[in-house]
Amino acid sequence: MGKLISTHTDNATEAGSFDRWVARKILSIIGNPALAFVLHDGSTVTIGDGQTSLRLLIHDRPALWLLAINPELYFGELYSEGRIDLEGGLSEFLNTANRALTARKSPVVSGLIYSWVKQLFINNSLDTARHNIHQHYDIGNAFYEKWLDREMQYTCAYFAAPDCTLEQAQIAKMDHVCRKLRLEPGQSVVEAGFGWGGLARHMARKYGVRVKAYNISHEQVAYARQRAKNEGLDEQVEYIEDDYRNIRGEFDVFVSVGMLEHVGTRNYKVLGRVINSCLKEKGMGLIHTIGRNRPGYMNPWIAKRIFPGACPPAISEMMNIFESENLSVLDIENLRLHYATTLEHWLSRFNDNIGQIREKYDEKFIRAWRLYLCGSISAFTTGRLQLYQVVFTPGENNNLPWSRAHLYDSHQ
Amino acid sequence: MGKLISTHTDNATEAGSFDRWVARKILSIIGNPALAFVLHDGSTVTIGDGQTSLRLLIHDRPALWLLAINPELYFGELYSEGRIDLEGGLSEFLNTANRALTARKSPVVSGLIYSWVKQLFINNSLDTARHNIHQHYDIGNAFYEKWLDREMQYTCAYFAAPDCTLEQAQIAKMDHVCRKLRLEPGQSVVEAGFGWGGLARHMARKYGVRVKAYNISHEQVAYARQRAKNEGLDEQVEYIEDDYRNIRGEFDVFVSVGMLEHVGTRNYKVLGRVINSCLKEKGMGLIHTIGRNRPGYMNPWIAKRIFPGACPPAISEMMNIFESENLSVLDIENLRLHYATTLEHWLSRFNDNIGQIREKYDEKFIRAWRLYLCGSISAFTTGRLQLYQVVFTPGENNNLPWSRAHLYDSHQ
Repeated sequence: MGKLISTHTDNATEAGSFDRWVARKILSIIGNPALAFVLHDGSTVTIGDGQTSLRLLIHDRPALWLLAINPELYFGELYSEGRIDLEGGLSEFLNTANRALTARKSPVVSGLIYSWVKQLFINNSLDTARHNIHQHYDIGNAFYEKWLDREMQYTCAYFAAPDCTLEQAQIAKMDHVCRKLRLEPGQSVVEAGFGWGGLARHMARKYGVRVKAYNISHEQVAYARQRAKNEGLDEQVEYIEDDYRNIRGEFDVFVSVGMLEHVGTRNYKVLGRVINSCLKEKGMGLIHTIGRNRPGYMNPWIAKRIFPGACPPAISEMMNIFESENLSVLDIENLRLHYATTLEHWLSRFNDNIGQIREKYDEKFIRAWRLYLCGSISAFTTGRLQLYQVVFTPGENNNLPWSRAHLYDSHQ
Repeated sequence: MGKLISTHTDNATEAGSFDRWVARKILSIIGNPALAFVLHDGSTVTIGDGQTSLRLLIHDRPALWLLAINPELYFGELYSEGRIDLEGGLSEFLNTANRALTARKSPVVSGLIYSWVKQLFINNSLDTARHNIHQHYDIGNAFYEKWLDREMQYTCAYFAAPDCTLEQAQIAKMDHVCRKLRLEPGQSVVEAGFGWGGLARHMARKYGVRVKAYNISHEQVAYARQRAKNEGLDEQVEYIEDDYRNIRGEFDVFVSVGMLEHVGTRNYKVLGRVINSCLKEKGMGLIHTIGRNRPGYMNPWIAKRIFPGACPPAISEMMNIFESENLSVLDIENLRLHYATTLEHWLSRFNDNIGQIREKYDEKFIRAWRLYLCGSISAFTTGRLQLYQVVFTPGENNNLPWSRAHLYDSHQ
């Protein structure tokens, strides 16, 4: 935040008509939501009839100006720093803002332009990708252990019933993926982006397959190798510290859960070529990713502070992976509400362990992380984000199940 | 066929080196399949080692030249006229040709260009659409009754097990669609393109909904109305002879089975607007359509003689319906092999009733129709065509099932 103007010297002065005009302008940019802005002198600005209990407290005048310049970026920055606060419930506030953003009649730029901009500027070359992934995943395994499940699944769980525990739902997610891939003992699997390696170990242990798994996060690779060794799975599972673009060999199955968000749309054709060259003729593949209903950009604060280089694709964009390689899409399932529930579990564990987290991280980090979790719950709840699981196979494979009933036989 | 050169005068002469060069050129255009061409003088041309039992008999020299000009168009024309014949099995011949077409290293134009060309030239304005639909569906209901099921479903059936009868599989298809839409008694449904009206009647009878159904084929509308009256469903089902673009009102459910093939990609945004304006906030929609793995063109003979104006979309193209309206795609299922099986049933019934069909239609019509059925079996078997069912809902609807298990509860 060193670059931000943070002089609080003029806070004693009353908010003038220009400040109120700026506040109304911000509300207008985000689509006129039913929110109240409380300025630094305690005066309130609303749009419409002003009936709302959702209040944004803006503690200093420069904070108001920064919000006007780029509300989606500076909301996160200022909230982390404690220069703005919310009354009436963070979730309700974010849901109201997100719904207004979706309903905006004239977005600043059209979806198509977003799509091109993403292709131009989100590069994610081998080096950039390594740097971005380091920034997010190498904060420290201990931090993630505080609020993820035992298998350290940092992706959407599968709540076959909404009252499942997080542990059950993460195992159900892995089984749902394995059933979609129709894993059989002895098969070879390649995994692109393995997180802390939980899916690879689950596949090896429960389905008897061999897995070669790729990831560029150094801390995650070390963690995954140690756990595989401890659990006696290091003969079946090989964790490789390398980029998906360097995958070599031929496999029965390709799987990638939660990596595509980091790939960048301009690299989708390359990913398609990698998949097609490593998948056998009768092979099966699955990509599990955060996505969107239409091309658009990631919230710029998340993209700057939490997930550098991240861009969740629309289905039309994802098709660039498959179409030029004549890969055939067999099944797409949207699990949006499952991600909202997963994130609620994470937030609740995060809050339960806040004492331990505070021992190592400062208040700014904690406020940023809490906003990220709440903001993500809101994005999945209001339909700003989706969760797609896409099953695919080479275009001439006829070794296909007659229905998807096998996914639901005696399901947990 | 009046425009074709059909002088058979030079058939007595031997095929020369130029004829053989032309024959090899044709094989090269379609990707060098392992097929033999037998020229008008009985001499044989093959590519590679020449080991094949699949032989195309080309009875006259101009037929060879027409094949060279546009093999995908004139193959159908010449076969219907009896100027070419096949030895070694029609299906095997078509599968071999289709696989070669898919594997061609350098297609004549790229998928993107196909996509633009389709947008430019396949217009399907209100008048053109009416003309095209008339050409295919108003041949006579009696003809289709000879080989369709009792409910006159002229779309892909759903073989939960591959040994189901066609009657069972067509009812299972309608139930699969209704389950995906989560129909409840008393709901209002709008159907775009209803064929002979079987799905609308099934929905009304079994699920207790009211259906307003649109179709521009005069013969089909008359047939559907009569059957609804006979079956006591004319209070619940209203069949309207009009274009989908004229749908008005608000409904719980939008459904369209087998119409999108006739819409044309340039009209997808209009279709999206129609859907969004007629679907309630918590409404559900389903589109069932023939599609492709990547943008491309319909076989030109089918597009000329069988389905004028038809173009099966790639998934990326279909997304134009949904993305600009913030409709959220919940589920895409690919039922390609179900269509191959459906077509095998149709072909078998067609052949069983060939005596009755011959009383009304000439040999050219019968050969054309048989080629169309066999060619379609081959296209779905070899992955040249796909069958997509897409379920969608307005982007903020959270009234969604937690899993798709309900589709498979005690399934027929």
